[in-house]
Amino acid sequence: MTTPELSLRYRRYIDVLNRQDWDSLGEYVADDVVHNGRALGVAGYRAMLAQDYRDIPDLHFAIERMVCEPPHVAARLRFHCTPVGRFLGLDVNGRTVDFTENVFYAWRDGRIAEVWSVIDKAAIEAQLR
Amino acid sequence: MTTPELSLRYRRYIDVLNRQDWDSLGEYVADDVVHNGRALGVAGYRAMLAQDYRDIPDLHFAIERMVCEPPHVAARLRFHCTPVGRFLGLDVNGRTVDFTENVFYAWRDGRIAEVWSVIDKAAIEAQLR
Repeated sequence: MTTPELSLRYRRYIDVLNRQDWDSLGEYVADDVVHNGRALGVAGYRAMLAQDYRDIPDLHFAIERMVCEPPHVAARLRFHCTPVGRFLGLDVNGRTVDFTENVFYAWRDGRIAEVWSVIDKAAIEAQLR
Repeated sequence: MTTPELSLRYRRYIDVLNRQDWDSLGEYVADDVVHNGRALGVAGYRAMLAQDYRDIPDLHFAIERMVCEPPHVAARLRFHCTPVGRFLGLDVNGRTVDFTENVFYAWRDGRIAEVWSVIDKAAIEAQLR
């Protein structure tokens, strides 16, 4: 895939997350996907995302910055959302917080094969003080 | 700059950090550089790095993954190092820890104009338990 093609494909993946269109997830995520070193597979990946939406009902993925060099995409995602209970081990408990995630993806045959994600936990802690 | 040129330039910037060659930093970092929303300027950026090396004498920047789409670079950096005291608000106190930083850079005229960095603080916390 070219850079414009992969960039567009990444945007469509993010749209799938925001629509919670779990039936389409497998078009974008490889059967044997690995997330932060854990071999989740697409079923485990879907379960992780579904749990995220239960923990954060107003979850929305916004692409603040994207860098694409096939077969890799890096994105800075921004979240403005309201975790209902604990989140990342922090007692957020219904506070609305603003934070970012810097995440790298390796794509293979048009699907995400591996993900390396870091969420800005320190930014959330600063908002809870 | 092309993707290969900017990728090489980024590697040279990382070499400057690892050599603590602060006299050369201005070749790679813009006078008015902004880091995580703070207008540090190159002097403030140099001071931040010098303080990092005082806090972590064995600090070494290793590029685990790089995604380059001019004028942007995204990198996943890996650290295996020994903060002497507190680090990111955590009592590391001479423990050797392993963690990553996912970081985005916007370049302008061959120098870094803006940086958006997230360090995996949760990974360090897990190693201190």
